This record gives sequence, structure tokens and C-alpha cells, in this order.
Amino acid sequence: MHQAVEELAHADTFRGYGPEEGYHWLRQAVIDHEYSPRGITLDPEEVFISEGAGSDLGNLSELFAADNSVAILDPSYPAYMDGSLMAGRNIIPLPCTIANGFVPELPKQKADIIYLCLPNNPTGTVLRHQELQRWVDYAIANHSIIIFDAAYEAYISEPDVPHSIYELEGAKQVAIEVRSFSKGAGFTAVRCGYTVVPKQIGLNAMWLRRQCTKYNGTSYVAQRAAMATFTLEGKQGLEHNLAYYKQTASRIKNGLTALGYDVYGGENAPYIWCKTPDKTSSWEFFDLLLNQCQITCTPGVGFGDSGEGFVRFSAFSKREDVEEALARMKTLHITH
Amino acid sequence: MHQAVEELAHADTFRGYGPEEGYHWLRQAVIDHEYSPRGITLDPEEVFISEGAGSDLGNLSELFAADNSVAILDPSYPAYMDGSLMAGRNIIPLPCTIANGFVPELPKQKADIIYLCLPNNPTGTVLRHQELQRWVDYAIANHSIIIFDAAYEAYISEPDVPHSIYELEGAKQVAIEVRSFSKGAGFTAVRCGYTVVPKQIGLNAMWLRRQCTKYNGTSYVAQRAAMATFTLEGKQGLEHNLAYYKQTASRIKNGLTALGYDVYGGENAPYIWCKTPDKTSSWEFFDLLLNQCQITCTPGVGFGDSGEGFVRFSAFSKREDVEEALARMKTLHITH
Repeated sequence: MHQAVEELAHADTFRGYGPEEGYHWLRQAVIDHEYSPRGITLDPEEVFISEGAGSDLGNLSELFAADNSVAILDPSYPAYMDGSLMAGRNIIPLPCTIANGFVPELPKQKADIIYLCLPNNPTGTVLRHQELQRWVDYAIANHSIIIFDAAYEAYISEPDVPHSIYELEGAKQVAIEVRSFSKGAGFTAVRCGYTVVPKQIGLNAMWLRRQCTKYNGTSYVAQRAAMATFTLEGKQGLEHNLAYYKQTASRIKNGLTALGYDVYGGENAPYIWCKTPDKTSSWEFFDLLLNQCQITCTPGVGFGDSGEGFVRFSAFSKREDVEEALARMKTLHITH
Repeated sequence: MHQAVEELAHADTFRGYGPEEGYHWLRQAVIDHEYSPRGITLDPEEVFISEGAGSDLGNLSELFAADNSVAILDPSYPAYMDGSLMAGRNIIPLPCTIANGFVPELPKQKADIIYLCLPNNPTGTVLRHQELQRWVDYAIANHSIIIFDAAYEAYISEPDVPHSIYELEGAKQVAIEVRSFSKGAGFTAVRCGYTVVPKQIGLNAMWLRRQCTKYNGTSYVAQRAAMATFTLEGKQGLEHNLAYYKQTASRIKNGLTALGYDVYGGENAPYIWCKTPDKTSSWEFFDLLLNQCQITCTPGVGFGDSGEGFVRFSAFSKREDVEEALARMKTLHITH
């Protein structure tokens, strides 16, 4: 990033507007480092660099007619629901509950658009290869489009869990994949992500046109930062951080289990999905933790109706803070 | 920018997701340096930092119903037209031609949304205080919203030309103003701009909600870079650059006039709007210049139907290149 800043400071290395869809070297690097190693072939023109997955997830909605229905995991990251409601779309919620092991069932009616975030935020749900293939097959049969949010793919620990939806047969016909540098490389303030829109899906030219009309390209400094994550040093740094956060997730999960909580997720995701004790609501338990222990968590109901009665704990914390939090929770006294 | 990068590199100064609407210190600095000196009072909550004016101009369209009509200067920056067409809106073109001195007339039918880019890209048109007041009054009378693109305000040289639409009586009730750091401070690759949505207009909360749902905030490094433009050193640098580009615009205008071309703009804008000679079309003249002189310009018809028969020259060039270009144009031989 320092080098990129320096380039902008000198006339002979200055850069102006870059390509709206991102620099070719970064699009190619994404393919070389994220897709080719998994046997996925992509053309750089299918990879669109952006200032973050959040924007893409919202803006992709513009590709679809207002009367298209949208299937959304419940609970899930609120942007899918909010963006769809803002577009006036009909929502088909797909409940993920203790009863179904937080594994969503295929929509019963036809869904035109399906948002899938896997590993899921907040539940930590993953789908195995065969399970996810059923969703791709559904989309092919129903002419649906899957918007696959793979923001947490780096947290996958188990072997049979696809990191990209394009590992599945036929997925390039029906799926758009959105990815982030925020969750692995800590780009929350840097701002860089990318979206894959395969040419086979028929929306590649439309998305290019959308981006070229309503977006002027991602900060050069952020693109160079993204490029740095693919160097040996960058990869080692990422690996180190990911190992730390995965261990933290494990520690939170085990610690809460030892305290008698029912906890889910935390194995392929940086989030622990925790049933609130003694039938407290999400917000009641949030308040108890905040007031008695000075611990913050995220009330599960904020992720959708099926999140009521849960809270989300995040592994993006220092280990010593996690130990302190677990120690404090031993003294928690549940009141209604 | 170096300092901001360094902050992100250390745990004790690291920043994560910032406010979607921008950091308070930058919103306040925009007011202190751009608005207060012109007697305009704004609340920081009315200033939204973004990764560029281009995105805001496109995304603002989401605030309005699909059947709202849109009045657009013809010619103008293509994003207004393209974004409106993508939203399926009815367009009311407002021709700016030699006949009306490139000064648009008020729409004859009711326009729900009016895009005004002043100083105009590509014609360089400005409206004096009284002329612009008529547009504000029209918007108040017709319950229209003006989206005022002030990207080139720093190029205004004449005293009676408003730099902000909020210099006009009543404008806060009807106008959203979009501004850029690209055209003054050369932020084309850095990516930072801002949009003012006054609370009086009734859309402030909607825009905040839009940004918080579909945008995750502007790169911290870019926001700090924007902040640096407001320092004494930053201001001096900007002043120096602006003076250079203004002189370049003058030189292009005078040089072309001396060669017998009919030229407009270039006085309050970095663009020179040039009538093509001998009834050549925009693209014919573009080709002649390219092939005979190895000079590029922008064909006027790309900015709208009324741009046919014009090309746009840009002052964002080195002086010696401009001199070379003018020398080459002496030998240009017009053929059809």
C-alpha cells in the first residue's frame, strides 16, 4: 500500500481512473490463487473487483426484475433481506433452526433469486458437496440465479465442503459468487472485494455495463493491497491470522459448552451461534451479558425471525479477552 | 495516506469498518472548508462521504419511484442518462446548443428529477446566481428534486457564479449536491467524493438507510487523503494545480480560436467545447484528428444528441503536449 501511495505521488507513475471492473493483474491473480488451484477455470473478464462484497451484494439486485422472488436463509446477513425489501421483492424465507440442524430446505415454490451465504453468517452452517449440488440442480431446473456469498470460505476446515460454488457441476450456468478480502486479510477499512459473474450465466455484460455506468473503479491502493495478499509473505500472514481466529472460535465454542450453553457453528466459520439460556430472548440475553458482564454479542433476531432465542459470538477478538469473557460468564445470573 | 496505511498496520491504531456515511472528522471538514466559508450552514449528518461522485450519481436514482421523469441537460456526463434509462425512467432532454448559448431552458412539462451539472461537462456552461435561482424556484413549485453535480466547482473563475446550489434561496428544500475530490485533487485513482442530502429535503434518512444497507464505507486511506486536501499544504497544492489547468484551458481555447475554430467553455471548466469544422460529424473529426495528428479528443455526440457536431478537449494535459497538439492541428486537412 505504501508503494501504491508513492506511485500516485509521482507524475511518471501516477494513475488516473482505472478500469471500472478492476485491474487485469488483480483479476488474473484472483483466478490464479483462488480458483485455478481448485480446478476452476475462469476468464479474467468474469472477475469484477469492487470496493467490497457488501456493495456488490446490494447492487447485484439491479440485474433482476422487481417482481422476481428472493429466497433468503433465515437467519442470515441482513443486507440480502433489506436490499430485497428496498427493491420491493417478494421474500421466501428459508428457516435454519435447531430442528433442521440449521440446514435450509430447498424452496417449495419457485424462487427466482437465491441468496446463499456459506459458511453461513451467523449460524456457521456449511453444505457438503452433494448437499450444495442439490441447490445448483434446483437453480438449473427452475431458471433461478444463486447469489453465493463466500465471504467466509477461508474458515472452512472440513474437506468435503466446497470453497467455491463453481466446484459444483453446472454452477457457472446459474451462480454469481461474491467474495471479500475483509474476513481473511482484515480489509474492513481498506475496502476491496470481488464478484464472479460467469459468461455462461448471461448476465456478465449487464453487470459490466452496470459497473461502468454507476461505479468508477476500486481505489488503486486497495487493489494493490489485495494483490499483496497473494504474495508469499501475504499468504503466510493470512494463514497465521486465520489459524489464530479458528483457534479462538474453538476456544469460545468449548468454553461456552463447558458453561452449559448449546452452541453451533464455530468450526468452518468465525462465528459461534449460541442458544440463549432459560428461554431468554436474543435482546434479553444481550442485555444480561452487557449489564452483568460487560460483554457484547450480536442478538440473533437481528439476522431474521428464526434467529430469535440466539446470540452470535465472534472470534474476531484477542485470546485474552475471550478468556476474560468466559471467566465473567461463569458468574452470569439469568433473570427475566 | 502513508500515515493512514501505517495506522492500519498496527494493532493499536488499526481500524475496522468505519461509519458507512463517512468519518465525522471528514464530514465536518467538508463543511468547514467548502460550505461555511460561503455562508452555507450544514449539519455533518447531511454530508455523506463515498468512494466517488460517479457512484453516488448512479445510486441516488434508487431514492425515486420508477415512473418519475428525469430532466437531463443534453449534452452532459452520460451517467445521468444511462442510469435513468437503466431504471426505466422517462427522459426529458434539455438541449444546450449554440442557439441558446448552451444555457438550458426550464422543462416545459413537470420533471420529477433534474440533473444539473454546473459548470457543465462537456459544454463548460455556468449559470449566474439569478439564472440558477429560477431552477430552484421551478423545483420548489413543481416538487422536483435537483441532483446538482458540482464536480467542477473549483474551476469557476467568475464572481457571480454559485459554487454550491445551497447559495440559492430555498435550495435545501429541493437539491442534493454531489461533489468530487477527483477533478481538483486528482483523486481519480484514490476514490473519494461526497454527497450532501439536506434534512429539509426529506430524503436524508432514506439515503442513510441506502448507504448503510448497500455500502460499507469509504476506504480509510482515501478518507484520510481527502482530509489532507484541507491542510494548508494540501490547499496550496490544489491551488497550484488548478491554476495550471485553468491556464491550460485558456491556452487551448485561445489556440483553437486562432486556428479558426468556434470554441466554447474553458473559462469556468477544464473542458473546451469545440464545433467541428466543415460540417464534419463528431466521430469524423475525431478520426481526422487521431489519424492525421495523433491527437485524441472526446466525440461530442457521446454526451447526447445535441453534442453531435462537437468534440470536447480536456485541459488535464501537460502544457508542452498542448503546444505540440496545437502545432500539429495547423496542418490538419479536413476531408469527408
